[in-house]
Amino acid sequence: MRHTISVLVENKFGVLARISGLFSARGYNIDSLAVGATEDPKVSRMTIVVGGDESVLEQVTKQLNKLPEIIKVKDFLNVDYIERDLILVKIKASKNIRPEIMQMASIFRAKVVDVGQDTLTIEMTGDEDKIRAFIELIKPYNIQELARTGSIALERGGK
Amino acid sequence: MRHTISVLVENKFGVLARISGLFSARGYNIDSLAVGATEDPKVSRMTIVVGGDESVLEQVTKQLNKLPEIIKVKDFLNVDYIERDLILVKIKASKNIRPEIMQMASIFRAKVVDVGQDTLTIEMTGDEDKIRAFIELIKPYNIQELARTGSIALERGGK
Repeated sequence: MRHTISVLVENKFGVLARISGLFSARGYNIDSLAVGATEDPKVSRMTIVVGGDESVLEQVTKQLNKLPEIIKVKDFLNVDYIERDLILVKIKASKNIRPEIMQMASIFRAKVVDVGQDTLTIEMTGDEDKIRAFIELIKPYNIQELARTGSIALERGGK
Repeated sequence: MRHTISVLVENKFGVLARISGLFSARGYNIDSLAVGATEDPKVSRMTIVVGGDESVLEQVTKQLNKLPEIIKVKDFLNVDYIERDLILVKIKASKNIRPEIMQMASIFRAKVVDVGQDTLTIEMTGDEDKIRAFIELIKPYNIQELARTGSIALERGGK
């Protein structure tokens, strides 16, 4: 099962290594991980997407909560939340194929962020499903490079 | 100095822990880190933003290149590249303050992705400078939560 976990941590030396070590010691492979500063530069938020058994993941969460640098751990399992991932993809595209690719991009509300002699670079955001659908659609083209941030998530506001 | 490093790695158990351990052993604090799958599910790309002295960073790059799971390491220092970061921010916003926040969002081409009883959640992408400028602008409002992916980067296509 796919879990999205959000961890608020003190922005200290070595925290990332400790946390990722904790996951790998338990045999978890992390699907994606995004770490960035919050509005408070002393605090970072890690968003971890990991597949695995619920009971073992509960243990990892408990272990995380024991680390002194951890401020808060949240599993989005039973929460109504918004998830977003960002990709940049550079596609080989001669002039005659560009309109076709740009049309696909516009259907997905993706943005063309760079045009080279024979490349187009596209930026797109969305949840896991949307990103996957877009990657499937562009796979037949000549993908030169693809970078992806991994998911971040926030709980929805109360209705 | 701020460095953006892109590392293609085999998507194997424990690689993340090894790489982040390598940085922390050298005393580097990672500003941001984004790890996600590429178009090939066996390969992940890590984008690491780190500040520090150039010579020591060169050593870290050399060390990285020695790890068997590493396919390619690229420092964007002297490269013309595109960088993007994604944030989600939930702002406390009663009905009368919403138009003001939505106007700011539209100036930054940000999207409102959720509206709660008294919250607005906004998604925005951009480079480091744009993200910083947006966060400065919304700071006076009541930020409830903020999540950020950290940067990803691709080299621009040849002109």
